[in-house]
Amino acid sequence: MASSSTTRARDLNIPFPGQPGSYNAITDVPGVLVGYKTLSADLPPDAGGPVAVRTGVTAILPDAHSRMLVPTWAGFSSFNGNGEMTGAHWVNEAGYFLGPIMLTNTHSVGMAHHACLKWMTTRAEYEDTSDPWLLPVVAETCDAYLNDINGFHVEAEHVYEAIDSAAAGPIAEGNVGGGTGMSCYQFKGGTGTASRTVSIEDTSYTLGALVQANFGLRKDLTICGVPVGILSQDIVDKGKDSGSLIVVIATDAPLLPIQLQRIARRCGLGMGRTGTAGYNSSGDLFMAFTTARSKPSGLSSARESLDFLSSDQLDPLFGATVESTHEAIINAMTAAQTTVGHRGHLAPAIDHKWLASLFKP
Amino acid sequence: MASSSTTRARDLNIPFPGQPGSYNAITDVPGVLVGYKTLSADLPPDAGGPVAVRTGVTAILPDAHSRMLVPTWAGFSSFNGNGEMTGAHWVNEAGYFLGPIMLTNTHSVGMAHHACLKWMTTRAEYEDTSDPWLLPVVAETCDAYLNDINGFHVEAEHVYEAIDSAAAGPIAEGNVGGGTGMSCYQFKGGTGTASRTVSIEDTSYTLGALVQANFGLRKDLTICGVPVGILSQDIVDKGKDSGSLIVVIATDAPLLPIQLQRIARRCGLGMGRTGTAGYNSSGDLFMAFTTARSKPSGLSSARESLDFLSSDQLDPLFGATVESTHEAIINAMTAAQTTVGHRGHLAPAIDHKWLASLFKP
Amino acid sequence: MASSSTTRARDLNIPFPGQPGSYNAITDVPGVLVGYKTLSADLPPDAGGPVAVRTGVTAILPDAHSRMLVPTWAGFSSFNGNGEMTGAHWVNEAGYFLGPIMLTNTHSVGMAHHACLKWMTTRAEYEDTSDPWLLPVVAETCDAYLNDINGFHVEAEHVYEAIDSAAAGPIAEGNVGGGTGMSCYQFKGGTGTASRTVSIEDTSYTLGALVQANFGLRKDLTICGVPVGILSQDIVDKGKDSGSLIVVIATDAPLLPIQLQRIARRCGLGMGRTGTAGYNSSGDLFMAFTTARSKPSGLSSARESLDFLSSDQLDPLFGATVESTHEAIINAMTAAQTTVGHRGHLAPAIDHKWLASLFKP
Amino acid sequence: MASSSTTRARDLNIPFPGQPGSYNAITDVPGVLVGYKTLSADLPPDAGGPVAVRTGVTAILPDAHSRMLVPTWAGFSSFNGNGEMTGAHWVNEAGYFLGPIMLTNTHSVGMAHHACLKWMTTRAEYEDTSDPWLLPVVAETCDAYLNDINGFHVEAEHVYEAIDSAAAGPIAEGNVGGGTGMSCYQFKGGTGTASRTVSIEDTSYTLGALVQANFGLRKDLTICGVPVGILSQDIVDKGKDSGSLIVVIATDAPLLPIQLQRIARRCGLGMGRTGTAGYNSSGDLFMAFTTARSKPSGLSSARESLDFLSSDQLDPLFGATVESTHEAIINAMTAAQTTVGHRGHLAPAIDHKWLASLFKP
Repeated sequence: MASSSTTRARDLNIPFPGQPGSYNAITDVPGVLVGYKTLSADLPPDAGGPVAVRTGVTAILPDAHSRMLVPTWAGFSSFNGNGEMTGAHWVNEAGYFLGPIMLTNTHSVGMAHHACLKWMTTRAEYEDTSDPWLLPVVAETCDAYLNDINGFHVEAEHVYEAIDSAAAGPIAEGNVGGGTGMSCYQFKGGTGTASRTVSIEDTSYTLGALVQANFGLRKDLTICGVPVGILSQDIVDKGKDSGSLIVVIATDAPLLPIQLQRIARRCGLGMGRTGTAGYNSSGDLFMAFTTARSKPSGLSSARESLDFLSSDQLDPLFGATVESTHEAIINAMTAAQTTVGHRGHLAPAIDHKWLASLFKP
Repeated sequence: MASSSTTRARDLNIPFPGQPGSYNAITDVPGVLVGYKTLSADLPPDAGGPVAVRTGVTAILPDAHSRMLVPTWAGFSSFNGNGEMTGAHWVNEAGYFLGPIMLTNTHSVGMAHHACLKWMTTRAEYEDTSDPWLLPVVAETCDAYLNDINGFHVEAEHVYEAIDSAAAGPIAEGNVGGGTGMSCYQFKGGTGTASRTVSIEDTSYTLGALVQANFGLRKDLTICGVPVGILSQDIVDKGKDSGSLIVVIATDAPLLPIQLQRIARRCGLGMGRTGTAGYNSSGDLFMAFTTARSKPSGLSSARESLDFLSSDQLDPLFGATVESTHEAIINAMTAAQTTVGHRGHLAPAIDHKWLASLFKP
Repeated sequence: MASSSTTRARDLNIPFPGQPGSYNAITDVPGVLVGYKTLSADLPPDAGGPVAVRTGVTAILPDAHSRMLVPTWAGFSSFNGNGEMTGAHWVNEAGYFLGPIMLTNTHSVGMAHHACLKWMTTRAEYEDTSDPWLLPVVAETCDAYLNDINGFHVEAEHVYEAIDSAAAGPIAEGNVGGGTGMSCYQFKGGTGTASRTVSIEDTSYTLGALVQANFGLRKDLTICGVPVGILSQDIVDKGKDSGSLIVVIATDAPLLPIQLQRIARRCGLGMGRTGTAGYNSSGDLFMAFTTARSKPSGLSSARESLDFLSSDQLDPLFGATVESTHEAIINAMTAAQTTVGHRGHLAPAIDHKWLASLFKP
Repeated sequence: MASSSTTRARDLNIPFPGQPGSYNAITDVPGVLVGYKTLSADLPPDAGGPVAVRTGVTAILPDAHSRMLVPTWAGFSSFNGNGEMTGAHWVNEAGYFLGPIMLTNTHSVGMAHHACLKWMTTRAEYEDTSDPWLLPVVAETCDAYLNDINGFHVEAEHVYEAIDSAAAGPIAEGNVGGGTGMSCYQFKGGTGTASRTVSIEDTSYTLGALVQANFGLRKDLTICGVPVGILSQDIVDKGKDSGSLIVVIATDAPLLPIQLQRIARRCGLGMGRTGTAGYNSSGDLFMAFTTARSKPSGLSSARESLDFLSSDQLDPLFGATVESTHEAIINAMTAAQTTVGHRGHLAPAIDHKWLASLFKP
C-alpha cells in the first residue's frame, strides 16, 4: 500500500536509535492491520474563499481476528486532554476494548463512532454476548487549517472503507487517512509509523507506533537532538500551537493492562523528543494494546490466565515506545506532501534535501 | 412541560431528607435549561420478532447564555467506566466544557456527537476563538432491552429538537428523552431529576441532579433505607445487572474545577443509596458543573478571577449531591410508565400504591 | 485474640446480608495475619487539662509468607484524599506492594513508616533483589479527640510488636491497635472486620475487610437501612465531620491489579451504607489485595502468568466488598468500649441493648 | 549559601534556552526559601566493607509566611510511581498542602515525616484551625549506592536544621541536603535548581524548579540535544536504571489547582530532555505550587476568590517548566563532586572541561 515515492526519515540519514522491525511499522506486530480512507477534493468556493476537503479516516485492527470482536488488552494515557478518544473510560476500568481503533478529524468523531458501531453490529463476525452494547475507540486531531472541517465530509461509507481495506505489511504515511489534512511543527504532518524489536531474556518482541501528528511550533522542532526548527531558514512564528497528537502503540509482548498504561504514558517522552513543551491546545492522547493473549476470547470463562512480563523487565519496551513514537512523528513529516487546502492555507512539506544535510554522516 | 399525570416519589410519602428547590429539578439552578426529544414507534416485525423504537435524546444547557458558547466550569468522575461520556478528557485537563450536555442511548452517541457539533457550529451564537474545534459532552446508557438499538433511530434532526426545545421550569421525567427506553432495578426507569437548596454562611445555593437511570437488580432496590426490592412480591432474578447510570449535577455555588470533581464523585454515594453494589456492566459516569462565574467569557483575557467556597464549607453541597442523586433515580422510576418494547420485552412501572404503602407515615 | 466479651453487630440481630466466613474477619482469607499494639495510658495533666494516650498500631500481613518479602498484587482507590496512605504511588503504577500494611494515627505515620522499614530491612526474610529500596504501606486516621496525638506516643518498638504479634484466626475489634482512639458517627469507633464467601462458577472465594473507622456525623448513621442516628435520643450535632475511614480488603480470588482497583473503589459504597455523604474532612482511602498468585515470588523471571476472573464474573466480589465494608464499620462500633480520653473528651459506645431493639425480628 | 566553587551548567557553555531569573534558582520565586542539612561521615567498616553516610535533608518552604502554616495551592503528577511523595492524596483532592516540602533518602521518609510534623506542631506559627491534623509533603530518592541507607542516619534534629536554615537567595547544589548521596546518569548527581521568567500579556512571572536527581543510564544522557552519554569515553553499562527524580516547581503565576497539575505533568518532558526513556525503577514524582493568592489564609471564610491565568495563556509556563527541569537536572550534575561512599562505591562527577568542549561556540 505504501507508495514507493514516499520518503521515510531513515532515508534522510537521520540516526534513529534502536532496531526497527521489517517494515518499521505498527504492522510489524503480527496480526495488526491498518486501513485508510483519504478524502481530497476542491469544492466550489464560498464567501469565505476556497473550500477544500483534506481529511480522512484511519482504521487500526488489533489483530487479524478482529473481524470477530474479541477483547484486546489495552492501556490509556492522557498527556494533555485537549482532544477526544472515546472508549477510554472502559479501557481505564477494565483494561480492554473491542473492535477497531478509528482516527479521524475532530469534527468527524461522531460520524466515525456511529459508522464504526454500525460496522461492528452488522459486518463483524460478532459473537453475541450477554452485553449488547459496544464502546468504540475513536480519536481525533484537528485539520481545520487545511480542511473544511465544518463541512463534515466524512461519511459512514468512508469509515467502512477504511476498516475493510485494513491490511498487513508496509503501510502508507503522510497525507493519508485521518492524517490527510494535518500539520506538524508548522510543516505538513499526518500519519506516521515506526517499530522496534527488543529482546527480553532471549525472547524477541515487537512494538510499533502509529501516530496522527498534528502539533508543534516550528521553533521547537528537534530530531534526534538536532534543533531542526531553529536551523530552518523560514522560521514561522505563529505564537500558538494548535494541534494534537494521537499515538497508538501495538506490541506482541504479553502485558497486564496496568503495564499497558505505563507504555502509553511513555508516548509523551517520544513526543517530547521532537521538541515540544506540550502546549495547551494539543490533545495528546495515547493508547497501547497487546496482541498477546492465550486465546481469542478473553472473557468467556470465569477463571482465566494471562501471561505478562515482570515489571523490572519492561525497560526495553519503554525504550521502544519512546523511540517508535519519536520516529513515527518524523516519518509522518517526511512522508507528507506539500498541501494547499481550505481557504488556500499552505502547509509545506519539510525539505528532504535540506533535512538530510543536517544529518550527513 | 411536565405532564401533570406523572408521579413523583415525594407524592408517594417517601421521606427524602433535605430541602428541594421550587421544582425539585435541575432547572432550579438559575439558567439551566433542559430539552427532550422522545422517539416511540412500533415498526413492522422482522425475523427476530417485534421491532420497537423506544429511545430519544436529552439536552442540558448549562445556562441561558449557552446559545452563545461560553466555557462552563465542570468536574468529571467515573465510578465504573463501562460507558461513554465524551468530552471528559478536556474536563479532566482544563476543568471546563462548551455547549450542551447530551444524553442518549449507547449506540446513538456518535450521531448525538455529530449533530451536537453541527448545532454548535451552525446554530449557536458561537463567538469565534483561536481554537477552531469543539469537544461535545455526550453520554449514554443502553436501552437495548426495550429499544431496537441497532436500528440507529436517533437522527441529527432529533438532536437539534432536543436542544432547541430546552427550557427552564418544571421538567418531564420517566419515559422521556434519552431515558425513554431505560430500565432501573428491573422496573421501568428513565429520566429523573431532583434538587436541594443549602445555606452556607448565610448564602443560599441550589444544586440539582438530572439522571438517566438504567441500572440495578430488583433484589437490591432500596429507597430511603427500605429494602423495596426484597419486599417486592415479584422479585426478578436475572442474575446480571445490565445497565448504567449517568448523573449530571448543576449548581450555582461557586466552585473550583477540582471541587467539582469532588461533587461528581459523591454521585456514587447517591447511587449507592438506591441499593446497588456497583456492578461490572454499569457505566456510572458523573459530571458536575457550576453556573457561577464572574463573567460570561471565561477565557478571553489572560488574568482572571474565580470565586469559590473553601474546602471546609463543601459538606452541605456534598450532602445535596447524594440526596439529589438518590431522589432523582427514584423519581425516574416513579414517573416512568410500563413499557412493552423491542422483541416484546416488558419493563413494568413500579406500583405506586404499593410503593406508597411501604412508606405510610 | 478476640476477647469473648466484645460484641459483634450480628449478635445484636442486625440482618446483614451475605454469607460470612468462619470468623467473619479478614483473617478468613487464608494466610492473612493481623496484629495489634494498643497504647492506653493517662499521663500527668498539663496546662490544657488531662493528657491521655489512646492510640496504637495495626499490622496486616498479606499472607503467611510475608515474613519473606514477596510482592502482593493490589489496587488503591481514594474516595476523599484527606488522609495518608503511603506506598500508593507504586501500587497505582505497578499493581503491587511488599511487606505489611500498617494502620496508626495521623501523626504517627512517620514513625510507623520508619519502623516498618527497619523491620523489613532487619527482621524480614528479605531476599535481596536488584532494587535496594522499599516503599511501605502506612495509613492513618486521626484520634486527636481522644488521644494526645501531638505527644507522638507511638514508638518503633510498638510497630515491631504489632507486626510480630500478627496471627491468623479470630481477631480483636474496637479499641485495639490503630483503632484504639477512634470515633465513628460520634460514637466510639475503632477497628472492625467482616468477611464474605462467594461462589463464582462453582469455586468458592473469600473476601474480607478490615477497617479503621473514624468518621461520620451521628445524624447520618444508618445500619442496614435503619436511620439509627436519627432514632438516637441524644443526637449530637457538632456540625462538622472530623474523621476518616481506612479500608483494607483481602481476597483469595485471583484478580488483576486493575480489577483490584475496582474492588477498592467499591469500599466507598460500603461506607455509604452507613449513611455518610462523604464529608470534606474524611480521608477515605482504600486498598485491596489478593493472596492468589501462582508462586511466592512474582517478580523473579521475565515471563510469568497470572490467573484472574473475567470482568463479568466480578459482581459477587463487588457485593462482598460493599457488604464486608458496611459490616466491618458497624463491628468497629459495637466492639468499641466507651472511652474517656485526652482533655477528658468522651466517646460513648453505642448502646447494645437499644441498638438490638431497633432490629428485633 | 552557594559555594563560589560549584559549577553551574551555563558556566560550561551549555546553550539552555529561555531567560532565567536572577539566581537561576527556585528561590527566584519571591518568598520561596530553601534549606539543607548535609550528612557525610565515614563510619567504622563492618563485615560488608566500608560504611559511609552520604545523605541529608532538603526543605522547601513555599513562602516566607510558611512559618505560619497557610495553605499553598498545588498540583501533583506521577510519571512513574516507583517512589514516595506523602501528602499527595490531599493535593489531588483539594489542591493544596500546608508546611514545608521535605526531600530525603527513601528510607528516611518516615523520620522526615515524623520530624516535619513535630516541627509543624511545635515550631511553626500554627494558627489552630478546626482540623487538628497535618499531612506533610515528604519525597525521596534512593542513595543506597553511596549511602548506608539502612543505617537510618537521618534524625529528627537534622530535619529541623534543614527547615530552620531555609533562606532566600542563591542556593547550593550538588552534594547537598537530600541530594548528597544521589547519582544521575551514572555520574554523581544530587540537588539542582534553575528558573525562568516569562511574560504573559505584559506581566512577568517567575517559575523555578528544584530537583533531587538520581536516575538515568549513562548511554542515554542528553544535554540540549547533544548525546553526551554516547560521547562519553567511559560508557558504563550496568544494564538497569536504579534511581528516581523528584521535581518541585514553584511559581508566582496565579494558577488553579487543576492548572498546577498540568504544570507538574510537564516536568516529565524536562526529564525526557536529559535522554531517559523513563525506566521502571525510577520514581518520578512531581509537585508544582504557586505562591500567588489574594491573602495568606485561603481557608478562613466561606466564599473566596482566586486569580488564575486562562488556559490558553499557559504555554509560556509550560515551556518554562520543561526548560527549568532540564537545566536543574544538569545543574545537579555539574555542581556535584566525585564521591566515594558506602562499600567504597564511586560516583564520578562529570568532567567539566570535557563537557564544556562539547558545547564550544
